[in-house]
Amino acid sequence: MRALSIVLPAMLMLGFAAAGPQDRPRLREFGLSTGTLPPGPLNAITDVAGVLVGQTTLIEGTSIRTGVTAVLPHGGNVFQDKVPAAISVANGFGKLAGSTQVEELGAIETPIVLTNTLAVPTAADAVIDYILGLPGNERVESVNPVVGETNDGVLNDIRGRAVKKDHVLAAIRTAKGGPAAADTALDPPSKGSCMIVVATDAPLDSRNLKRLAKRALLGIARTGGYFSNGSGDYAIAFSTAKDVRVPHQLASPTQTITVLRNEAVSPLFLAAAEAAEEAILNSLFKAHRVEGKNGHVAEALPLDKLRELLKK
Amino acid sequence: MRALSIVLPAMLMLGFAAAGPQDRPRLREFGLSTGTLPPGPLNAITDVAGVLVGQTTLIEGTSIRTGVTAVLPHGGNVFQDKVPAAISVANGFGKLAGSTQVEELGAIETPIVLTNTLAVPTAADAVIDYILGLPGNERVESVNPVVGETNDGVLNDIRGRAVKKDHVLAAIRTAKGGPAAADTALDPPSKGSCMIVVATDAPLDSRNLKRLAKRALLGIARTGGYFSNGSGDYAIAFSTAKDVRVPHQLASPTQTITVLRNEAVSPLFLAAAEAAEEAILNSLFKAHRVEGKNGHVAEALPLDKLRELLKK
Amino acid sequence: MRALSIVLPAMLMLGFAAAGPQDRPRLREFGLSTGTLPPGPLNAITDVAGVLVGQTTLIEGTSIRTGVTAVLPHGGNVFQDKVPAAISVANGFGKLAGSTQVEELGAIETPIVLTNTLAVPTAADAVIDYILGLPGNERVESVNPVVGETNDGVLNDIRGRAVKKDHVLAAIRTAKGGPAAADTALDPPSKGSCMIVVATDAPLDSRNLKRLAKRALLGIARTGGYFSNGSGDYAIAFSTAKDVRVPHQLASPTQTITVLRNEAVSPLFLAAAEAAEEAILNSLFKAHRVEGKNGHVAEALPLDKLRELLKK
Amino acid sequence: MRALSIVLPAMLMLGFAAAGPQDRPRLREFGLSTGTLPPGPLNAITDVAGVLVGQTTLIEGTSIRTGVTAVLPHGGNVFQDKVPAAISVANGFGKLAGSTQVEELGAIETPIVLTNTLAVPTAADAVIDYILGLPGNERVESVNPVVGETNDGVLNDIRGRAVKKDHVLAAIRTAKGGPAAADTALDPPSKGSCMIVVATDAPLDSRNLKRLAKRALLGIARTGGYFSNGSGDYAIAFSTAKDVRVPHQLASPTQTITVLRNEAVSPLFLAAAEAAEEAILNSLFKAHRVEGKNGHVAEALPLDKLRELLKK
Repeated sequence: MRALSIVLPAMLMLGFAAAGPQDRPRLREFGLSTGTLPPGPLNAITDVAGVLVGQTTLIEGTSIRTGVTAVLPHGGNVFQDKVPAAISVANGFGKLAGSTQVEELGAIETPIVLTNTLAVPTAADAVIDYILGLPGNERVESVNPVVGETNDGVLNDIRGRAVKKDHVLAAIRTAKGGPAAADTALDPPSKGSCMIVVATDAPLDSRNLKRLAKRALLGIARTGGYFSNGSGDYAIAFSTAKDVRVPHQLASPTQTITVLRNEAVSPLFLAAAEAAEEAILNSLFKAHRVEGKNGHVAEALPLDKLRELLKK
Repeated sequence: MRALSIVLPAMLMLGFAAAGPQDRPRLREFGLSTGTLPPGPLNAITDVAGVLVGQTTLIEGTSIRTGVTAVLPHGGNVFQDKVPAAISVANGFGKLAGSTQVEELGAIETPIVLTNTLAVPTAADAVIDYILGLPGNERVESVNPVVGETNDGVLNDIRGRAVKKDHVLAAIRTAKGGPAAADTALDPPSKGSCMIVVATDAPLDSRNLKRLAKRALLGIARTGGYFSNGSGDYAIAFSTAKDVRVPHQLASPTQTITVLRNEAVSPLFLAAAEAAEEAILNSLFKAHRVEGKNGHVAEALPLDKLRELLKK
Repeated sequence: MRALSIVLPAMLMLGFAAAGPQDRPRLREFGLSTGTLPPGPLNAITDVAGVLVGQTTLIEGTSIRTGVTAVLPHGGNVFQDKVPAAISVANGFGKLAGSTQVEELGAIETPIVLTNTLAVPTAADAVIDYILGLPGNERVESVNPVVGETNDGVLNDIRGRAVKKDHVLAAIRTAKGGPAAADTALDPPSKGSCMIVVATDAPLDSRNLKRLAKRALLGIARTGGYFSNGSGDYAIAFSTAKDVRVPHQLASPTQTITVLRNEAVSPLFLAAAEAAEEAILNSLFKAHRVEGKNGHVAEALPLDKLRELLKK
Repeated sequence: MRALSIVLPAMLMLGFAAAGPQDRPRLREFGLSTGTLPPGPLNAITDVAGVLVGQTTLIEGTSIRTGVTAVLPHGGNVFQDKVPAAISVANGFGKLAGSTQVEELGAIETPIVLTNTLAVPTAADAVIDYILGLPGNERVESVNPVVGETNDGVLNDIRGRAVKKDHVLAAIRTAKGGPAAADTALDPPSKGSCMIVVATDAPLDSRNLKRLAKRALLGIARTGGYFSNGSGDYAIAFSTAKDVRVPHQLASPTQTITVLRNEAVSPLFLAAAEAAEEAILNSLFKAHRVEGKNGHVAEALPLDKLRELLKK
């Protein structure tokens, strides 16, 4: 069970609302905690070895408040070396690109990109550019970009379509592991949607990854959300375990893999729910005040008031 | 919006673990509450006008601890006068009968029966008996019984198959509305499974009933559950609105219905999550100590200790 | 690829309408053929090594015309030694028992039983009896019977509920491999429903078994069917490959399996469509004239007229 | 039933491989026919009143052989005046954009665009441009483009990404009804994928539209296809019936609609299967010889040989 105990804390999610400047604390830095399982050393998705995260933040003038996040399952050629994956849809009122192929084939072959609702095609186009341009992909003629979104139109001039392909490519190409990965971006509050990304080094096949993704969505319920009509809520889970990778080409028609059995997945299910909950809370804690389009303001969580409330 | 404000409090669920004797309080009687929306007058599924609930409890010797619950959408011939319905599966590790037809046709045509895992076929058989025997159903040759289950094998000699067709028919035939409906049965704690029944008088079609059922399952997450591998977790939702009823036979190939629009369903979604949460908590509060098979004991929630904890 | 070439001809289905007396020919015995891939030596599901088939036929008086078919994935304890499986639903207007657990866990743990619509609970109950009674299952408290159905109410007094548990147990217990397996039963014509069972010794996981089952349903389209509203059409596929078996208990939390890759499954998809088509045609050819309830008659396919038509 | 008898022949699909020059016959012009129901006057999707089709064909140099097809449910503002719709996935190995929202909300709010695999993001981006730019949509901040694809990489330099937003907008803006609508485009043979579009003026809700789309996919089986692993096969169905339209905004939380009952949909199911089959055959008949990338050639169906074969 050692493999599992290593895996659990290493699982984390990127909530839609990434963190703000470094001067605000995360939940645990504030002195609170949630969940029963211990987090990983960074308490970030990059705790899963090999996972890389990149972000491009666009803050311009009074009304551009948007960005791009890219999650790479590993540092190699993910098209040639696909990873098993699955998507769970809590509320499909969203524009997620790539879902049917992930459902059918049980794998992803590109980075996962998150951006604003109207930038999904731009991001998908950039992902195709990225994949076609990778050494070794010279003959690739079919790519399934996976792009999730939230609607940042409250603060951002979303109709202005500020996100360009270069912003997306920059997020992918600057992706890195380690501590700073997820804490520098701006994703202003959405109207409610949430796209959760779950990485694990446990050797799960796509069926159990789908079950895992479904539990990550419970993190939303644990923080009070209920998948309201307009909130497109999705989770995608992938495994980085080398053994379950899905090579694009293989001489043999069969592949031998070692997978976790149904009976062993419950601790991971709990970890997914807890990690998603904490990632959402961390987003709330880290997010600072943002003023955007039409003078709309997203206030930061008032930590002083919270401290007072907790004393009572 | 008046229709909605009437509907919301009238929505409630039957948790897996129905209540024990009358001497234990519900959550609100104990002085606590949860959720933001007001409950209905009975805070029971029978707040939805027309819904009937019946139960048969089997306590015999040292090891029979099981039962049957029947929920009737209305007091008429539900086969001839079907109601729109939908099922959401959080964890399909269960033996729910009838799911594919509900998914395909968007309606139920029988009472919903809940019992123990190994009694599902017996209950389904009894439901067929019941439907075939109703006046007006003399020519019926196809029936889709909807039967959910939880596994009470911890306290109950489940392999003994104590539930017989007569027990099921009794639950159906004694079903009634009003206050006493859900508070007299014994459903010993299951190993984790949960079958939630949601009734609403809001005019929802099957697509939005499916969305509603999915939100009811969040009640499990709100009380700490996470759909562990072995816990089969399902919700079924139906509407009692007369206007959306699905008559078995109709001269016209078309039917005119008035349905709630997507934009109006969010308050119901929240109500479903909150009502499910409260139903689960009520089950925990009402459940009394049960000793069963092999001396296994399910302790009651220690209300005194809880009161002390809350004082701190 | 040798494994595949062995597998393909060994795949076959049991259509709803099993064959009549031995004096009528199958399609190929009549001189016709369909499909492009060669059938197995028996052209029967028992070509897949280890698969056993049993049937109980009930013909009594003027109006009992029904039966039970049981398909056992292997001759051992299928609960302890489950096989990967998946169900595809073409039209869910049916009473298939066991579907959600197969979808969730990707395996079956009982024989697959086919019977008439109103006998599904009886058959499921018998399957539970059978599993609980097998040596080694003394502690089993949860069983997921898989039972499919068609409605034989045109010829059969289906409301009379002639099928009893003993009939089902007899079908299971007399199941055997070899040539006679599928050619002795009576399944009078249904009102349209179809339950296809696909067995393969190819090492498919549940995801690709689901894809395989979906292709088997194309056999219905190839013979002119179109999943009309009232026709519940399902396919279930399982793999008998030893390597992908799902042991009920295993010391290790992981399991190593060798599975066919996506890129290698297309020949099996074609085989499933062709084998299902031929199984349906064989059913039509073998079915003899049956007179049943209320003097209703299902005429046999008029082979003489067919021969004349073909000459033109 | 008159409504139905009008509807049936008016239903048609756009197969992946649209027709070539006018000098080649369709199936019926060649003297053959298939199916049992009569086609509409044009035997085209534009037989459904109000449906508009536009196409942009790109033939440049020796290696650009691609194009765009746009299907508009009606000539108005489809975002403000959405139509009920549903998608059925036969094989999800494809890049269909927009599927989860259609599944969740049961409606489409944009034209349906078909193009090559790597042009899906470009087309989706153009659809967003189109919707944002329509009078009345000045405040729209969320759009769900529906874009299907097939892979034309055999003849087309698909990596060259020849399709630009203007090509897509041209297809949308020049869309028209009437006879010429679908017979002028070039869609070179794909590697196997197929995207079927079904329009009907029957008042179907999204649940029955999903069932209808599933039957359209049987057209592929009727012409010999079997959803091979690499062939992404989808169908999308929508209803143009005014009564079931889904207005983007409505004062009332409810909407009254008249829908076809389950019992009345079977003739439409058959029509969908037959129309899809004939549309595929028409594509084969109309397609002329195309020489493309690397000298690859897609030969036309040799009508002379076919005529000889048929004489025998």
